[in-house]
Amino acid sequence: MALESIERSGVTHFPAHYSGPTLGEVGEHRAIEEIVTVAPSTRNGDDAAVLSHASPNSRAVATTDMLIEGRHFRVDWSTPEEIGQKAIVQNFADVEAMGARPIAALLAVSAPPHTPLSFIRGIAAGIAQRVGEYSAELVGGDLTSGDDLVLSVTAIGSLGGSRPALTLDRARPGQQVVAHGRLGWSAAGLALLTRFGRDGVPEDLSALVDAHCAPHLNPGRGVIARATGATSMTDNSDGLIADVGTIARLSGVGVDLDAAALAPDELLVRAGRLLDADPWEWVLAGGEDHALLCTTAGAPPSGFRPLGRVVRGGRDHDVTVDGAAPAYGHGWVSF
Amino acid sequence: MALESIERSGVTHFPAHYSGPTLGEVGEHRAIEEIVTVAPSTRNGDDAAVLSHASPNSRAVATTDMLIEGRHFRVDWSTPEEIGQKAIVQNFADVEAMGARPIAALLAVSAPPHTPLSFIRGIAAGIAQRVGEYSAELVGGDLTSGDDLVLSVTAIGSLGGSRPALTLDRARPGQQVVAHGRLGWSAAGLALLTRFGRDGVPEDLSALVDAHCAPHLNPGRGVIARATGATSMTDNSDGLIADVGTIARLSGVGVDLDAAALAPDELLVRAGRLLDADPWEWVLAGGEDHALLCTTAGAPPSGFRPLGRVVRGGRDHDVTVDGAAPAYGHGWVSF
Repeated sequence: MALESIERSGVTHFPAHYSGPTLGEVGEHRAIEEIVTVAPSTRNGDDAAVLSHASPNSRAVATTDMLIEGRHFRVDWSTPEEIGQKAIVQNFADVEAMGARPIAALLAVSAPPHTPLSFIRGIAAGIAQRVGEYSAELVGGDLTSGDDLVLSVTAIGSLGGSRPALTLDRARPGQQVVAHGRLGWSAAGLALLTRFGRDGVPEDLSALVDAHCAPHLNPGRGVIARATGATSMTDNSDGLIADVGTIARLSGVGVDLDAAALAPDELLVRAGRLLDADPWEWVLAGGEDHALLCTTAGAPPSGFRPLGRVVRGGRDHDVTVDGAAPAYGHGWVSF
Repeated sequence: MALESIERSGVTHFPAHYSGPTLGEVGEHRAIEEIVTVAPSTRNGDDAAVLSHASPNSRAVATTDMLIEGRHFRVDWSTPEEIGQKAIVQNFADVEAMGARPIAALLAVSAPPHTPLSFIRGIAAGIAQRVGEYSAELVGGDLTSGDDLVLSVTAIGSLGGSRPALTLDRARPGQQVVAHGRLGWSAAGLALLTRFGRDGVPEDLSALVDAHCAPHLNPGRGVIARATGATSMTDNSDGLIADVGTIARLSGVGVDLDAAALAPDELLVRAGRLLDADPWEWVLAGGEDHALLCTTAGAPPSGFRPLGRVVRGGRDHDVTVDGAAPAYGHGWVSF
């Protein structure tokens, strides 16, 4: 989310079509009942959730991300289902980026009393859908009253077997850089939303908006990559150049990306023309696609495509495109 | 936190003595550096944290709780160190209440740009202190900009061996109800803060304020209780009657508590006299002490004291005191 950042602040105004009772009217217990009905788990409902016995030799993996209304999503742009989906995918992508399998999620929500119960139900439904795709479960959470609408999701994964996790520091010169998932679509979707609002985006570009509001990955690609010789992995959170740059910096190497492999697709080009924007900026600096970015000594793992190669470090730029400094790539920074 | 609830809303005003640069001035990366310097872990710094190989036959346990400034704590009442300590203890108490050992914590923080970096450092120091007492680590997190100061902590624990976890539904008539930790001190501390502010509380009652701002438990009591025949356990989050009532309801039993075992101690009596309040309300309905409340078929586990006994259910009140309905006990409810 490097380019256009959401910056609305103040009271959350829920669109009028979320009718029915509010959290303030029904109370915490009723709202929690609603969440666990929509996203059920037998592990939920005690002081803490007890996960299954891990497979022999496996390790647990954990990560957390916070999403704030007006900053990471807007209730007038995203449906609650999309917000729930996004919260899961951005956390599960971090689990996958270790080469691990997501098995559980926890959800803490702060919401103002005027939040419609139906909105909370929608978030739970979006979460249930995405965790279901991974055969994972929402195993616990917390719901409290606050001025802001804030979601905090923790994802827990299982890293089986004895191969090392796919950390950021094992890229080596000569390896390929490969990716699973689209690049630049989320940033393009955000730019369209910023200009036109949800209802004003041309129909033929709605896939870009969907990619921003509810990013999607094919589950299991991280496990596959780790099983087939990947060396380092991360996901495209802050922007391609920034995230590949993190692998380069921590591995002490450089990366040269192929411009031809990154060239904006037809949809990005059309959106760029409409907005008078350069779609390369979305691809190189966009972030929030949560595409998996990976280095590998062998052939690209199934579902991954080549993006470039790992080279020796020590040059002016850790990451180049066709040997030159990238045109964009400052990435996303909070505050 | 049933009795006096914190209800301040609006912009967070940090006391003037937190000087130095703000998050808006130094940025996200510098602030994260500060946190991981103060609360270090070799598992931190990648997309997700990889925990150690679990012991054979063990299971992971996970729980999450959110703390919001102006609702769960106030920056003019609590030091950042105390806020960090409280965030860990209330989550680790939930892990202990399963009979598990806390091994890791994750911290997601939303903070306004005017938050002093020194305040964030203080939160990290409080977290580091408490996780250190449990030989656990802060293994990951997220830091983002938002209007409210919000902490969301996830605790992960390890449940070893083949005994069942200490769930809420296994209390049986004839068993004892026992507790580890103080009851009512947190609520009394909150009442004192509400009346006098932090600086105005009489010196001889400051232990009550400390109990509210930075509750403390002796680590490991949950594991000990599970190893020595405890049947059900929870912690005193919402109030003694409410939390014991949850065990009673889910176990299909009643609980009769001994008034003599609950009698307010000298400090609570003094605070009650000063505030013209009934200290029994703090004991029975106070919550947030995070004392461990447990049922057991045998003698009280080491560190636990008797509070009463499990009886047959089906009466008007799930929980009685000396056979009668308790004078207080509605507990804490959000919204």
